[in-house]
Amino acid sequence: MSLRAKALYTFQSENKDEINIQENEELVIFDERPVDGWLQGENSRGERGIFPASYVEIIRPRSNSNITDNSLSPAGSPGNDSSYFPSTPNTSLRLPSYEDDDWDDWDDWDDSSTVVEDGDPRQGVGANGHAHQSSYNNPNVHYRPKPHMERQDSISSSRKGSMVGRNLNRFSSFVRSGVEAFVLGDVPMMAKIAESYTIEMGPRGPQWKENPQPFTCSIEDPTKQTKFKGIKTYISYRVTPSHTGRPVYRRYKHFDWLYNRLLHKFTVISVPHLPEKQATGRFEEDFIEKRQRRLILWMNHMTSHPVLSQYEGFEHFLMCADDKQWKLGKRRAEKDEMVGAHFMLTFQIPNEHQDLQDVEERVDTFKAFAKKMDDSVMQLTHVTSELVRKHLGGFRKEFQRLGNAFQSISQAFTLDPPYSSDALNNAISHTGRTYENIGEMFAEQPKYDLFHMLDKLSLYQGLLANFPDIIHLQKGAFAKVKESQRMSDEGKMDQDEADGIRKRCRTVGFALQAEMNHFHRRREVDFKEMMQAYLRQQIAFYQRVGQQLERTLRMYDNL
Amino acid sequence: MSLRAKALYTFQSENKDEINIQENEELVIFDERPVDGWLQGENSRGERGIFPASYVEIIRPRSNSNITDNSLSPAGSPGNDSSYFPSTPNTSLRLPSYEDDDWDDWDDWDDSSTVVEDGDPRQGVGANGHAHQSSYNNPNVHYRPKPHMERQDSISSSRKGSMVGRNLNRFSSFVRSGVEAFVLGDVPMMAKIAESYTIEMGPRGPQWKENPQPFTCSIEDPTKQTKFKGIKTYISYRVTPSHTGRPVYRRYKHFDWLYNRLLHKFTVISVPHLPEKQATGRFEEDFIEKRQRRLILWMNHMTSHPVLSQYEGFEHFLMCADDKQWKLGKRRAEKDEMVGAHFMLTFQIPNEHQDLQDVEERVDTFKAFAKKMDDSVMQLTHVTSELVRKHLGGFRKEFQRLGNAFQSISQAFTLDPPYSSDALNNAISHTGRTYENIGEMFAEQPKYDLFHMLDKLSLYQGLLANFPDIIHLQKGAFAKVKESQRMSDEGKMDQDEADGIRKRCRTVGFALQAEMNHFHRRREVDFKEMMQAYLRQQIAFYQRVGQQLERTLRMYDNL
Repeated sequence: MSLRAKALYTFQSENKDEINIQENEELVIFDERPVDGWLQGENSRGERGIFPASYVEIIRPRSNSNITDNSLSPAGSPGNDSSYFPSTPNTSLRLPSYEDDDWDDWDDWDDSSTVVEDGDPRQGVGANGHAHQSSYNNPNVHYRPKPHMERQDSISSSRKGSMVGRNLNRFSSFVRSGVEAFVLGDVPMMAKIAESYTIEMGPRGPQWKENPQPFTCSIEDPTKQTKFKGIKTYISYRVTPSHTGRPVYRRYKHFDWLYNRLLHKFTVISVPHLPEKQATGRFEEDFIEKRQRRLILWMNHMTSHPVLSQYEGFEHFLMCADDKQWKLGKRRAEKDEMVGAHFMLTFQIPNEHQDLQDVEERVDTFKAFAKKMDDSVMQLTHVTSELVRKHLGGFRKEFQRLGNAFQSISQAFTLDPPYSSDALNNAISHTGRTYENIGEMFAEQPKYDLFHMLDKLSLYQGLLANFPDIIHLQKGAFAKVKESQRMSDEGKMDQDEADGIRKRCRTVGFALQAEMNHFHRRREVDFKEMMQAYLRQQIAFYQRVGQQLERTLRMYDNL
Repeated sequence: MSLRAKALYTFQSENKDEINIQENEELVIFDERPVDGWLQGENSRGERGIFPASYVEIIRPRSNSNITDNSLSPAGSPGNDSSYFPSTPNTSLRLPSYEDDDWDDWDDWDDSSTVVEDGDPRQGVGANGHAHQSSYNNPNVHYRPKPHMERQDSISSSRKGSMVGRNLNRFSSFVRSGVEAFVLGDVPMMAKIAESYTIEMGPRGPQWKENPQPFTCSIEDPTKQTKFKGIKTYISYRVTPSHTGRPVYRRYKHFDWLYNRLLHKFTVISVPHLPEKQATGRFEEDFIEKRQRRLILWMNHMTSHPVLSQYEGFEHFLMCADDKQWKLGKRRAEKDEMVGAHFMLTFQIPNEHQDLQDVEERVDTFKAFAKKMDDSVMQLTHVTSELVRKHLGGFRKEFQRLGNAFQSISQAFTLDPPYSSDALNNAISHTGRTYENIGEMFAEQPKYDLFHMLDKLSLYQGLLANFPDIIHLQKGAFAKVKESQRMSDEGKMDQDEADGIRKRCRTVGFALQAEMNHFHRRREVDFKEMMQAYLRQQIAFYQRVGQQLERTLRMYDNL
């Protein structure tokens, strides 16, 4: 998929990865998903490399077959919100095959050292591999990874024949997730449902009932492992849940398996994206550290979530230490029937009345909030990435140059020995070294602050990218309620059936509000922590610089 | 005088004063003297503005009539060192007319608000207007301002007829200064010499005997004055010498008058350059502050100098408060006969024997030192100017962007009121403002440190620029000694005459060494002070930033 783009501004390469682009130059883009504000591509002189995404405008072909074309949707159907909730399937997304069940010969696309994918090997910066280019802003791009359409379709085909029209857009998340089927009553109540998730009324509205056995989980000690006599190399992480205290060892591909199970099952829940896949430089220290930091954030969100943290497949991932048991548990999770539409059956909701119109407004407010937060997270990511670049480049360079210039002065002063003061020359030379060192401190500093900020922003980019789809579910359900009520009023539908639709729509509304509530609670905790950690590291940094300079100043005292 | 230059690198304008230049582009240069690393000119697209001097190479026409052409100098004459001591007269230098004696109608080229000269109105950075583009490095450029050739020529024409050949290069500083005439004994001993400057042997060799009445002098309170009903506007400084305590009020043109007297009189002494002349923006606060700071440094060097500080014309400048007396004293100073060659008669030197060969080596060592110091002062000036630019531009921008991004996050968080925490939002918003403020602190900081460093470096650029000429005097004198000795050996000259030349050459050597010694003593004091002041301001800066961040961090404490 090679897109074309036009350079809006001239950009001068400053590092070897980067290429020059000239204003108005046409470029080929290798991957339209920017990684922390950088795109990869080729300029008109055939040079390949990266350049800032904000300097170019992607040229979108008009002939792009857009399956969400509104003309295909019945008038008034929920599909007409497509400017905000586009549903072009993301065909470029590589999903591992779930059929291959073998522990060892499982598709090694992430761990194999021979696979080469396009990817930005730059350290520190880099959004989630699936990451969105703000699906709030770009109606033609839609990056939320989609599970295969399996059971939802079979449910649809076995429908008993509701009167309410179905959405013709088979890629709409409303349809794909099975929520349409659920709302229309096409999902038969199962005899026995082992799982149950309770939504309760909290001070800020509906909320997920806390996990009765809350726990945390550490991810430590990424270690390079080999197998098949060194042909395959991978990184293994020690994963230790707090409630068992027993470590298990997991590879990225295991996280990825779990992640895809979560996408399959958890309708209405914003599943955190995994840190990006990357082929080149996967064994470089910086990359390993970055992936570990981001897996830890991912894990924290998982364990903090009352629903996700109780998922049986997650439990299996966290506890199973035996190869054979692992395979069995994996198969069990893959055969889980309570996914998608059926997952909606697992909710226990409060009896409390909620006016659907009020819910609609609540969701609209959240939608506006989420869009603005998505924008500002994106803005902060750009600024932070650029600041990292400045720390590693400009800031370091300026201070090193100053250091060099002081050294040069000191050297000049030694050239006329009868008039040369060793003490002064040493002090100036030391000042030079101090500034060279301060340059290095600037270059090192992102490790202590900016990288962590980028990690958290990347997590939130992923969480926010899910919400348009999730909100779309509630919009779709609400539209069905209105449609069924109209039909009932016109005598075209039994009031019972319309009531059923309204009741099931309430479930969707409660679940969405509970998820919104959870998002806000985590957001407060996470951003407070993020800001505090950043400020603490910044204070420590400026203090260290000040102390270095104070020590240096003392060298001039007794001259 | 419009020169051409070739752009070595592409430069992108970042401020409205600057213009883009493309690699290999041909440019017109308005003034080849860079002001703190910036040149003014026009690019091939007709845009006029400034660009970094280091990005371009000036194209020197081959046909340039070089009066110092070595072929004109007799073989073996001192003129053959012209690659290092070029003597192209600087015709572009505007000197005020000294004939016009009138206090008020004196050429107002500096103070008149109607005069417009080319000049860089940018603040903070800016070398001396006469400043050299390293006369150590660029043999075709020579910026030491030269007084009119008056008495030296009349002395030459009235010579009694020494046997030793004269330098044909009439622009050589050796000839122009009158030192040649002095060494050859063409300057008659005057009956009564009122002035006398003693050179004594100190721990580091010959040194000027201290001024028996040392003093300092403050320059304060630059005040805008008008006369002729507001037609003329100028800045008046309150100048208060410590030994009288009585202020006098002086304008830049008075400094400039004094400066030109000093150039006339003080052979063998490195007269500090005045801060640059500038026509546009002369009444802007930044410029006034900068000129005042640099006049203070100039004055400090003047009062510290055992010879310059005792000059009668300087005393007149510092003390005369009466218009009529001022005119009389000015005329007296301009009629001073002990200038140039005659000034050499005022030295009392030690009887101590100094081998001329040793002096030669001492001077060569100093020359190598001075060249390297000139280079490194230039390097530090470039680095510091660039750092100023970064403080005002890049650093400020980065922190302001970070601040804006935090503010934007905080705004997003207010958009879903039921879930919004005012305390957190305020803290994040405050963090945003703090970083915006830190950006401003970065932009303000050069006023406290870098500008002062640039001031001192500019003073030293001026002092160092004088030394090639001064060293040339000693070289010329030494060559005359050798020539006269050879002629004496060949019986073509009386031994008495040769001895006289050798004796007078000793005077030149002692004086040069005393001046070198004084330079080194000042250099140590000045650079120690410069480094300490810089480090203190830097420490204070980083502490202030840290304190701001600490206060901000505390806002998150009770969330």
